Amino acid sequence: MEKLKNDLLLRTIAGEECERPPVWLMRQAGRILPQYRALRAKLSGFKELVETPDLACEVTIQPIDELDVDAAIIFSDILVVPEAMGLTYEMIEKKGPFFPETVNSKAEIDKLIVPDGKSNLDFTIEAIKKTKQELNGRVPLIGFAGAPFTILCYMVEGQGSKTFSKARKLLYAEPELAHKLLQKITDTTIFYLKEQVNAGVNVIQLFDSWAGVLNTNLYLQFCMPYIKQICDAMENIPFTFFAKGASYAYSAFKNLNCETIGLDWTVNVNEVKSIFGNQKVLQGNFDPAQLYSNSENIANATIEMINSFGNSKHIVNLGHGVYPDTPLSGVKTFVNTVKNFRY
Amino acid sequence: MEKLKNDLLLRTIAGEECERPPVWLMRQAGRILPQYRALRAKLSGFKELVETPDLACEVTIQPIDELDVDAAIIFSDILVVPEAMGLTYEMIEKKGPFFPETVNSKAEIDKLIVPDGKSNLDFTIEAIKKTKQELNGRVPLIGFAGAPFTILCYMVEGQGSKTFSKARKLLYAEPELAHKLLQKITDTTIFYLKEQVNAGVNVIQLFDSWAGVLNTNLYLQFCMPYIKQICDAMENIPFTFFAKGASYAYSAFKNLNCETIGLDWTVNVNEVKSIFGNQKVLQGNFDPAQLYSNSENIANATIEMINSFGNSKHIVNLGHGVYPDTPLSGVKTFVNTVKNFRY
Repeated sequence: MEKLKNDLLLRTIAGEECERPPVWLMRQAGRILPQYRALRAKLSGFKELVETPDLACEVTIQPIDELDVDAAIIFSDILVVPEAMGLTYEMIEKKGPFFPETVNSKAEIDKLIVPDGKSNLDFTIEAIKKTKQELNGRVPLIGFAGAPFTILCYMVEGQGSKTFSKARKLLYAEPELAHKLLQKITDTTIFYLKEQVNAGVNVIQLFDSWAGVLNTNLYLQFCMPYIKQICDAMENIPFTFFAKGASYAYSAFKNLNCETIGLDWTVNVNEVKSIFGNQKVLQGNFDPAQLYSNSENIANATIEMINSFGNSKHIVNLGHGVYPDTPLSGVKTFVNTVKNFRY
Repeated sequence: MEKLKNDLLLRTIAGEECERPPVWLMRQAGRILPQYRALRAKLSGFKELVETPDLACEVTIQPIDELDVDAAIIFSDILVVPEAMGLTYEMIEKKGPFFPETVNSKAEIDKLIVPDGKSNLDFTIEAIKKTKQELNGRVPLIGFAGAPFTILCYMVEGQGSKTFSKARKLLYAEPELAHKLLQKITDTTIFYLKEQVNAGVNVIQLFDSWAGVLNTNLYLQFCMPYIKQICDAMENIPFTFFAKGASYAYSAFKNLNCETIGLDWTVNVNEVKSIFGNQKVLQGNFDPAQLYSNSENIANATIEMINSFGNSKHIVNLGHGVYPDTPLSGVKTFVNTVKNFRY
């Protein structure tokens, strides 16, 4: 078995009592780092980074060098999955993703591919292999994918939205079609995540970024069965499930076959702890906007947050991806405060 | 005192046991109605409707004629408040509001006006007077405003956003400035709402549309003190407070000086009932996307929702504004199901 120089994240997930919580940041490989911005300025766009294993590897490792965080997360995009299924997208500067074609009919869903061999997911798999080599055991590497409903949102809507009302319309107006699409996304995701594990990732995180537009009924019907399939298929690797804005459904997460639950910054830690008890490791949930504050406030709030979780079943992270214009000094104060903390 | 032909809404808010819950829809005056679309097609834009009392009156009454709902809500926009304070905005078709100038510095906040006499809020006040006349007591008329933090979001950010990270940055990085701005918005809002009451509205609703990007700490610090001021200033009129995505702060709403709490579609009704007990009337919370379903499903889900609230302290509404492309037949099924229901 692989020997890691820093295995704090894995020991925490395994339930060991550790000296301090591990820390990493969602979107740590990105615009907060000057070396990322310098590299990005030379490229045609975001997708060139995602699709070039050498470059994806380079930006994955940048935050390990610059911030000394306890884990790397492979630089990629949840939208490589719909692309592998046949829907290409563009990443439009300052606007976000855009899919020229969307799916709404049975014919369009039937046409979608479930890749099971060579696909355009390969560049991420190559990037993972290369990153594992380059990391040389410094820290664990996290792989990831989007949860089926979040991917459905983009495939139906074609772009970001505040309400994803077209996606929700599909759930209500054409539930069978929605299930058909969700199953295809699930099958693709399981294939993709298994490839990631084979390539060497140490932990998987599943992001349900748009869970917050649903409610308990819809979540139990259209999300949980697929998330459960994915968790069960990945039972041999530490698994983190992060559903943003889904506190309404937390009590259903207790029985998921996963070790860790990610929390966004809006939830009350005490309430969450009373739901999960000691059954799950919890990850989060510092408000990314608080990193705009001064360093004294950041340090105090970080310690206050760690204490609110109050035991060693905690991975420190933000409650959302770090905002691109966050001062690097604020990020470093956050990380260093955790690294100097002792239970 | 004014005699209303249909006072079901007011009796429900007053705590009377009624034969059925009253029903109205957020954004009922809008694109779901063919007569609205016909009128709108003749105009230069959305703001012409807001700023022309005769037209605002006309579209306010359209859903009473077409849907026979139990209340009218004055056709206006929460952004008339920042405009009255000196920040004009444009409403860009299919994109939403845009403020050419925003506020971020002390000087910019100091420059903002708190109107206390003639202002560009007058067109809404005129529209209310005219609507009261035209309604002639058919149903109560609801007035409204945005909650201070939601207005701050637009004033700082200048447009819609998924995260309102610039607004949240102000709270953390410049808390005194944020409080200064929130107080000015609060003073303007109280002035504006009192004018609405003098013009004849029967109920006030305060919308905290972007509450969901905060958390309990921030909400207690930057929202509750101002919402409390507004509730206390309006204590002689039935008051509804609707904070979308703020279930994390519900326990703090119990002691607000208001009769009704609006609920979005993501919350679990049983959990909310256990928080508020019998202390508040609850308004909501049908998923607006469910109106895309077929009429049998809509009718069943509507009755199920009414039963989940389970007593007469309930005003039926959606959990969010009705989506513009919702079929009118679905809306009518929803309204008629409530009107035929008996406790």
